[in-house]
Amino acid sequence: MADWKNLDTLESYKELEKVEKVDIAKELSGANGAERVKKYSVKGAAGMTFNYAAKAVDDKVLAALKKLAEEAELADKYAELYNGAVINTGEKRLVLHQLTRGQLGKKIEVDGEDKRAFYVEQQNRIAEFANKVHAGEIVNEKGEKFTTVVQIGIGGSDLGPRAMYLALENWAKKSKLFKMEAKFISNVDPDDASQVLNSVDVSRSIFILVSKSGTTLETLTNESFVKDALKNAGLDPAKHMIAVTSATSPLAGNPDYLDAFFMDDYIGGRYSSTSAVGGAVLSLAFGPEVFADFLLGAAEEDKLSTEADPMKNPAMLDALIGVYERNVLGFPSTAILPYSQGLSRFPAHLQQLDMESNGKSVNRFGEAVDYVTGPVIFGEPGTNGQHSFYQLLHQGTDIIPLQFIGFKNSQLANDVVIQGSTSQQKLCANVAAQIVAFACGKKDENPNKNFKGGRPSSIIIGEELNPKTLGALLAHFENKVMFQGFLWNLNSFDQEGVQLGKTLAKKVLARETDGALSVYSDLLNI
Amino acid sequence: MADWKNLDTLESYKELEKVEKVDIAKELSGANGAERVKKYSVKGAAGMTFNYAAKAVDDKVLAALKKLAEEAELADKYAELYNGAVINTGEKRLVLHQLTRGQLGKKIEVDGEDKRAFYVEQQNRIAEFANKVHAGEIVNEKGEKFTTVVQIGIGGSDLGPRAMYLALENWAKKSKLFKMEAKFISNVDPDDASQVLNSVDVSRSIFILVSKSGTTLETLTNESFVKDALKNAGLDPAKHMIAVTSATSPLAGNPDYLDAFFMDDYIGGRYSSTSAVGGAVLSLAFGPEVFADFLLGAAEEDKLSTEADPMKNPAMLDALIGVYERNVLGFPSTAILPYSQGLSRFPAHLQQLDMESNGKSVNRFGEAVDYVTGPVIFGEPGTNGQHSFYQLLHQGTDIIPLQFIGFKNSQLANDVVIQGSTSQQKLCANVAAQIVAFACGKKDENPNKNFKGGRPSSIIIGEELNPKTLGALLAHFENKVMFQGFLWNLNSFDQEGVQLGKTLAKKVLARETDGALSVYSDLLNI
Repeated sequence: MADWKNLDTLESYKELEKVEKVDIAKELSGANGAERVKKYSVKGAAGMTFNYAAKAVDDKVLAALKKLAEEAELADKYAELYNGAVINTGEKRLVLHQLTRGQLGKKIEVDGEDKRAFYVEQQNRIAEFANKVHAGEIVNEKGEKFTTVVQIGIGGSDLGPRAMYLALENWAKKSKLFKMEAKFISNVDPDDASQVLNSVDVSRSIFILVSKSGTTLETLTNESFVKDALKNAGLDPAKHMIAVTSATSPLAGNPDYLDAFFMDDYIGGRYSSTSAVGGAVLSLAFGPEVFADFLLGAAEEDKLSTEADPMKNPAMLDALIGVYERNVLGFPSTAILPYSQGLSRFPAHLQQLDMESNGKSVNRFGEAVDYVTGPVIFGEPGTNGQHSFYQLLHQGTDIIPLQFIGFKNSQLANDVVIQGSTSQQKLCANVAAQIVAFACGKKDENPNKNFKGGRPSSIIIGEELNPKTLGALLAHFENKVMFQGFLWNLNSFDQEGVQLGKTLAKKVLARETDGALSVYSDLLNI
Repeated sequence: MADWKNLDTLESYKELEKVEKVDIAKELSGANGAERVKKYSVKGAAGMTFNYAAKAVDDKVLAALKKLAEEAELADKYAELYNGAVINTGEKRLVLHQLTRGQLGKKIEVDGEDKRAFYVEQQNRIAEFANKVHAGEIVNEKGEKFTTVVQIGIGGSDLGPRAMYLALENWAKKSKLFKMEAKFISNVDPDDASQVLNSVDVSRSIFILVSKSGTTLETLTNESFVKDALKNAGLDPAKHMIAVTSATSPLAGNPDYLDAFFMDDYIGGRYSSTSAVGGAVLSLAFGPEVFADFLLGAAEEDKLSTEADPMKNPAMLDALIGVYERNVLGFPSTAILPYSQGLSRFPAHLQQLDMESNGKSVNRFGEAVDYVTGPVIFGEPGTNGQHSFYQLLHQGTDIIPLQFIGFKNSQLANDVVIQGSTSQQKLCANVAAQIVAFACGKKDENPNKNFKGGRPSSIIIGEELNPKTLGALLAHFENKVMFQGFLWNLNSFDQEGVQLGKTLAKKVLARETDGALSVYSDLLNI
């Protein structure tokens, strides 16, 4: 059994605090800089590379981080997780999202059921369903093929699957694997559902209702919206809807749905893209083989994350450097900057993944911690961000650590040569230039044009954004967040912080308010 | 002439630091809380209200902020700006975006040209052009009406106009004022242009090339993409493209464009949504009258911002509270949380507006400042965010000030009653509940379910998101950012921080690199 201790009680952390700080600008400049970029690089899953040469680390800091990884028993804790320990201490649950991708440890049984077999069974059932839809064996009332799939879900049932869909849409089109357009309804704002319904042919749409409990108010409300629209079009909702839910929810085995696919309590919403929550919509949109490749990429990264030496384990190293930046260097936020339009909503997914997992003030035993935990996560694709908030990143008064992502090739492979280079080359030249600009800065006599540098970044580089690299990328960040949770001694798998708002909103709707809440309700005309 | 001084040299700022801090949870609880919500509210433009009852202020703090506004001469500085002073000291330029909305001060002439007349002339020219397109007087080669408008631009030529388009799209459809669908191409990633071009009928599309200088590399590259697509479809690009540019750019008076509409050096990209940059695409999409209403809303807020008393000037008060939170209370980021799906990209626009304007380390005279300036800005629409990063906002170790936005009515007015309330009521109940949950928290014996509260927020409330309220909302934040720039003694109107990356990217593309940059270039296969 690993020893779960607070970060600030670890000797290796106290040592880390004392290690001399690194001047990134100095380290990355000149001929030594070239050597450093070659050296500070680790092989990731799916042929990707994690390069941390522009981070504020050197061999001494890295040695201290390695000691921290050992004393915090990161590899042992991960092993406990994938061998079925109750890692989600708050809700007293196992944490099994990696099991949707592969069997890393021993067979895990709950109530006599082999959980790996259960997840594979759901994948197979989804694959069979999707193949029938694509083959025209499951059709609408008129016998027409379905052309669109609409996911109804919020939070983890929306952000992850949506980001993954957008990341693979163009790749699938180029690869001639694209099957059906996907849309997403999430917000309880009625304009969200109305807008999506106005943009699709409901008679040829399959709707996926995603709710683990079958009781999420936003999702049930939007389901009613959809059912009304189907009925108004003279259609039978039961012929157009499937459910992704837990086997014990009221949505399971319910004749109101064409079929139901199951998730369980051991996969949190924000970790559910590789479960049936992502599986149904991605298999319908791109075919089960694409979803299977996505799982393979994630499985490869999960396996890599079992490596105890952080110098060979990019997710663990990324986690350690992040904690060093947050707790020792004192940086309060981190930007995610993918140089890939396909990853336009990947930062929004990581924002949930990271902030909902590690935005906590008590440790896994419910005791207040005396150090800062999860940072604010934000980001937009490059080069767009360069013409926007990068001004502050370069010359603002705070230092914001950066996580770049880049691919050598575009997805659609349609390009144009202007001023001697392709757009893809311009895109990659920009990310390379930004790393060096942030790290090294540039002295200028005009203080307004002076760049101090010293702004740390890492980059994950892949050949192409495709199902396998996307799966590996997703798992990299899931595992990074998990390792950071271990370091901060948090339970990264519950989310009690979302409950109070829900409770108060119910009171407002039941007119059971007084004081300030009652006046706010009046102001908003509720 | 106002006296431009650093924030930390002002006596009123030193006094502000000493004022006793406010316990929001205490102030907002009980019967007094109700009175506070009613009292701490100021009327905004276009019928909106700015309510700051859940901010960490009381009458003493507010009095200190008022003194600060006076000593910093905020109203005088704004008056200098709208009377044509060279407020953009770095680039030695006037700052005239408010002049696109109305004449607040004296007539401003540059090189003998009345600038207000110039902006109005461009609005009229755009209106005439748009009306002809809508009437079928300007048509494609086959004599067919144009159905789609595609904006090609990046940064301020993209984020603001895109956010405004999305904010009004459903309103216009419901109001039967919708004329043409708009799309946007921004990223130099070739997948961006390819994807947009794959999604439109180019033969019936008008493309707007937006570049002040006519030399922005991303935009010219994407223009080539579009021209290739038009030529490949056997079409004449000159019959499908218009330009928004400066009168002296190579794009002006150029036979390659159907027409050109002008902006000038006195309107920065991030402040250009009310200039021809937003005017062309919004007038084509919704008609010139809608754009005119949008300007009216902004003009109303600009006028309100001339009020010297911050207690009657919501943008100024918002600015003052923000500086108090950033510099005195020490909060490093701010979240923008619109409870309106139409505002899905409004936070991304404000992220640019705020971070590019005030993410600076030197004052307007080029001297380093000894205090923190612009915060990190991020956000997503509610209720989506509630199921995502709100966990950290409620229970994380850092306090993040929040800016809520809410409307009493939806845009499409299509709704459903579930469990006794409409979706719109649920949406509004949630924002009301969140304000109180963040401010007051809730004690629980289980520390994992305990909410400390004390997390400050404000809310802007309107009847409906429409052209006028949107214009007022946009101007509120523009003016807030401007007042904060005055307080921090920054030049909020240049962006030297984006230059170094551009220079280095050119070197990479010219193969003129060595050291670290050269290795990064190799890794990215450039």
